[in-house]
Amino acid sequence: MIADLLASQREGWSLERPFYRDADIYALENDRLFPRQWSVVAHVADLPQRGAHVVRSLFGQEIIVVNAGDHGFRAYHNVCTHRGSRICKGDGKSPMLVCPYHAWSFQLTGELKTTRDLPAGVDPTQLGLHPVACREIGGLILCGLDIAAMPSLDAMEQAMLPTLRQHGIERAKVAARRSYPTRANWKLVLENFYECYHCRPSHPEYFRMNGHIAATAISDPAAASDWEEKVAIWRAGLDDAPYNREIRVAGGVDEARFTTYRHPIGLGRRTASRTGDPVAPLMGGFTDYDGGETALHLGMFGFLGAYNDHAVLFQFVPIGPDETDVVLTWFVDAEADLAAIDEDALTFLWDVTTRQDKGIVEENARGVDSPAYRPGPYTVLEAQTAGFVSHYAAMMRTLLSRDSGTQDPLRVVA
Amino acid sequence: MIADLLASQREGWSLERPFYRDADIYALENDRLFPRQWSVVAHVADLPQRGAHVVRSLFGQEIIVVNAGDHGFRAYHNVCTHRGSRICKGDGKSPMLVCPYHAWSFQLTGELKTTRDLPAGVDPTQLGLHPVACREIGGLILCGLDIAAMPSLDAMEQAMLPTLRQHGIERAKVAARRSYPTRANWKLVLENFYECYHCRPSHPEYFRMNGHIAATAISDPAAASDWEEKVAIWRAGLDDAPYNREIRVAGGVDEARFTTYRHPIGLGRRTASRTGDPVAPLMGGFTDYDGGETALHLGMFGFLGAYNDHAVLFQFVPIGPDETDVVLTWFVDAEADLAAIDEDALTFLWDVTTRQDKGIVEENARGVDSPAYRPGPYTVLEAQTAGFVSHYAAMMRTLLSRDSGTQDPLRVVA
Amino acid sequence: MIADLLASQREGWSLERPFYRDADIYALENDRLFPRQWSVVAHVADLPQRGAHVVRSLFGQEIIVVNAGDHGFRAYHNVCTHRGSRICKGDGKSPMLVCPYHAWSFQLTGELKTTRDLPAGVDPTQLGLHPVACREIGGLILCGLDIAAMPSLDAMEQAMLPTLRQHGIERAKVAARRSYPTRANWKLVLENFYECYHCRPSHPEYFRMNGHIAATAISDPAAASDWEEKVAIWRAGLDDAPYNREIRVAGGVDEARFTTYRHPIGLGRRTASRTGDPVAPLMGGFTDYDGGETALHLGMFGFLGAYNDHAVLFQFVPIGPDETDVVLTWFVDAEADLAAIDEDALTFLWDVTTRQDKGIVEENARGVDSPAYRPGPYTVLEAQTAGFVSHYAAMMRTLLSRDSGTQDPLRVVA
Repeated sequence: MIADLLASQREGWSLERPFYRDADIYALENDRLFPRQWSVVAHVADLPQRGAHVVRSLFGQEIIVVNAGDHGFRAYHNVCTHRGSRICKGDGKSPMLVCPYHAWSFQLTGELKTTRDLPAGVDPTQLGLHPVACREIGGLILCGLDIAAMPSLDAMEQAMLPTLRQHGIERAKVAARRSYPTRANWKLVLENFYECYHCRPSHPEYFRMNGHIAATAISDPAAASDWEEKVAIWRAGLDDAPYNREIRVAGGVDEARFTTYRHPIGLGRRTASRTGDPVAPLMGGFTDYDGGETALHLGMFGFLGAYNDHAVLFQFVPIGPDETDVVLTWFVDAEADLAAIDEDALTFLWDVTTRQDKGIVEENARGVDSPAYRPGPYTVLEAQTAGFVSHYAAMMRTLLSRDSGTQDPLRVVA
Repeated sequence: MIADLLASQREGWSLERPFYRDADIYALENDRLFPRQWSVVAHVADLPQRGAHVVRSLFGQEIIVVNAGDHGFRAYHNVCTHRGSRICKGDGKSPMLVCPYHAWSFQLTGELKTTRDLPAGVDPTQLGLHPVACREIGGLILCGLDIAAMPSLDAMEQAMLPTLRQHGIERAKVAARRSYPTRANWKLVLENFYECYHCRPSHPEYFRMNGHIAATAISDPAAASDWEEKVAIWRAGLDDAPYNREIRVAGGVDEARFTTYRHPIGLGRRTASRTGDPVAPLMGGFTDYDGGETALHLGMFGFLGAYNDHAVLFQFVPIGPDETDVVLTWFVDAEADLAAIDEDALTFLWDVTTRQDKGIVEENARGVDSPAYRPGPYTVLEAQTAGFVSHYAAMMRTLLSRDSGTQDPLRVVA
Repeated sequence: MIADLLASQREGWSLERPFYRDADIYALENDRLFPRQWSVVAHVADLPQRGAHVVRSLFGQEIIVVNAGDHGFRAYHNVCTHRGSRICKGDGKSPMLVCPYHAWSFQLTGELKTTRDLPAGVDPTQLGLHPVACREIGGLILCGLDIAAMPSLDAMEQAMLPTLRQHGIERAKVAARRSYPTRANWKLVLENFYECYHCRPSHPEYFRMNGHIAATAISDPAAASDWEEKVAIWRAGLDDAPYNREIRVAGGVDEARFTTYRHPIGLGRRTASRTGDPVAPLMGGFTDYDGGETALHLGMFGFLGAYNDHAVLFQFVPIGPDETDVVLTWFVDAEADLAAIDEDALTFLWDVTTRQDKGIVEENARGVDSPAYRPGPYTVLEAQTAGFVSHYAAMMRTLLSRDSGTQDPLRVVA
């Protein structure tokens, strides 16, 4: 049935209703699609010392990410191998991971240390923590559930590392973090994020502060070519450092989807603040303002928007068929004095815009919930959204055509 | 399985447990029964000018009812044909229906007005709003989901119009509106509404204020014939205007169920108030008090109780297998001064009675939820309830015997 | 599928994930296992006079337990045989059971008394209340849903009566009752209750107050044999009265599971209080403190812990696949002056311990909910838990191998 729906999916039109609401389709995504996706789950600043750990939800499964010192960052399911209790209730720091229930303890590298009480014949080396795929790139920690089937991150790392370093993300400080739980399917959240056709009616503040609106929020060929001209002039002023290049990789089942590109904020602005004036010291390798905005799509569920003086990480976290969490983290430079940062100024644009997005996406979800909903046509101003939907449908078709899903999330461990 | 349950339904006994609680049966009702039912969704006073609109839930589907001026009242699904967003968040007024997401706009008659952004090859005439059946009768606006399969309202209109006009409903003012959400299946709510056997133990105020109780709340042939005599005497004092006639149409799949009849309130009362004294000016065509109560059943889900000086509309709104909203609207005459109305006096009887009904029906639902529930016999004092249940079972049998349900609620539009 | 899971259940390891969370398995338990289990639902002190009744939930079905005077204690489903309304909203007392909806009344022995309104041909003797199995043993009232298939209580009654009498439970007073709703499957709650391996990390207060911890909370052969020696010395000081004997009956489909045994609290304590000093007068037949703790498992879902001066009843009440209520009742002697009891002192141990148990079991449930959960090995210190799980699996295998479940909970009545 789902295969039929996918087969009849009309290119350039929104998805059929079940994709936005049905528990069955969400379960299928959960079984086949999500376990193969890398997600940014934390920043190295969240785990500064050996033994530091954070608890995160990764596609509904709770994981522990731990700083294992010389062993780098590691991630495990937050489930004791004894009776199954959660091990960590929240973020913390300890030299071992100790389950509070019966005090079983595990090394930071996962091995069971408590072996005295084991019954005869039980092999403690089979009772280590269940690992989760974990990789750090330029300060961002990405995880994935199906350790045996994760797509390659090599191309993404190679393309992004210069950009992440230039923006100083590797050693950045977290200045603010906020969550925007949204009652809508994750695909509606992403469809909205991928287009700015709605920016004019829905985001007055964003509309006033961004030059690209002319080309993305209304069909006006003159305005669009005017904007292209401005971008070309701005780009001509840049050097050809790797971080100034544009790379777009559509990705698929075996390689991670990502994008890195830059364009000017425009309207005479140095950064994406209410006034256009800086809200924090220059970050990383920047020695002056070039008024640029760097856009990095990190897999399907992460995005980093980086300006000269700050950066904003977006984590899109599917919670259920009709619930998605959107978590924003604002970064400033490693050398910045957090006490001197005006948090309201720093967070203004993306806080107001994300609260508006939550509102309009929830209205979209309520409408799509009606039996009267029918797929509608994406306009030319929603080309990236159409591209995302097309990518999603292609991924699902491929994953469905395979014999079976990731039926055992721990199969490589067993 | 449901067909078997319906086949074995014992005449004169309450329904089997699944009919009062199972999601499957509710889904079947939602697919076959509800889309063919007319429901009163608003009064013309709710949409006084061209462009005024109200948002209502019709069997779980959100609709917009709009005053389209010369085009009369129209109703649409509250779903944009672009990306599916809700269009109206609430009641309001505007010359066009504009979706807040991407600002697509629609005429009050449903046509898409925004066509500039459409991709090539997309026909804007196919992107009008999805219509819902809509009909105004004597000031009441009725809607239905399956525009191609609604039962005829002609007989109902012909029978009721004189009554609605005599009671001044066409131009009445809304003096109060209250909602009584009830955690019970809609059939339990209606079964309760259709009998007064429970009035003696459950409604002391109603019991004291209504003369028909003697015949409907206890088996007492003497009291019953005494009441019949009183009604006959009262009726002899009336003229033979159409609104004084009694008409009962059981209805079915192709014709709407309705009833209109009058009887005296009795006990020396001019109206259904605590004291029996008027609570508002005489309505519509009445020039004096005749102490009558007019009862109009409007389809399965609506009822209007009209006295000489006020009227109360009951809307029974199924929300889910175990949830029903009951909405009461109190009307007074077009010429009445709302500021001079004592709202407590006006609403006393039906507010206290409906709150009591909510309580007893919820207790009924909790009991029926037990696996120990068995259908029980309706007594002679519950004849109308038995009739309603019999009508329901017959409707369901007919609708199930057809090849398929209303699988596409918009099939006539496509 | 469930049969396969049960067949592959590894002895000495925790259950597969579905047993702790799936609605299907809970539904099967509800259909086959629960209706055959006796549960303590009340104490005679809750229904002191003829006509007194209490409303209780028995495996999700609401029942009325009534003191029927010379007819003893009786229990019925809280469902009227007329239209199915709940009859009693809560505990109370009345000479008949009267449904508030239409005032149908029933004798305390269940027969319908209201017959005047019945339609012709309906036999009132077929409209009595639906009975539930009910038995009083030593002051405890036990009920069971499937009146035709309850396991025998004779052995349990014979074994426990001397103990319950010695502890004065038959005439005891209820000094306190508290509920600890726990978001976890009932088997996780019981698995936790059956072992003290977790007491050291999780229950500091209990740990300090109980001598058996040395043998149950850590693998230490020396400490274990030291404790056995202490128990042997203590036991040598007791007479051979029946209540001092140890009886353990594993039980099964046809006989109730129960245990009665005694051991010393130890650590120089006379009772299980913070200081070891009494918190109430001696109970029942005790004339001096022997520092003993009496443990009575009453079926699968009840436990009584009795000390010389007070007793604590545990009722484990499955509410849903992931919800269990734990209700504790503290008893003191019939002659005790309730006003003189220090409730904080009386309830200290089991209140703090049960709140901690709620916490750790909920953490266990959250972990088990993860797809990464795998059955783990019970240690030697969790032998009773392993035994409980083994008993459960055996019961389920037996019940599944039979042709069908208790499809009609009232089949003997019909």
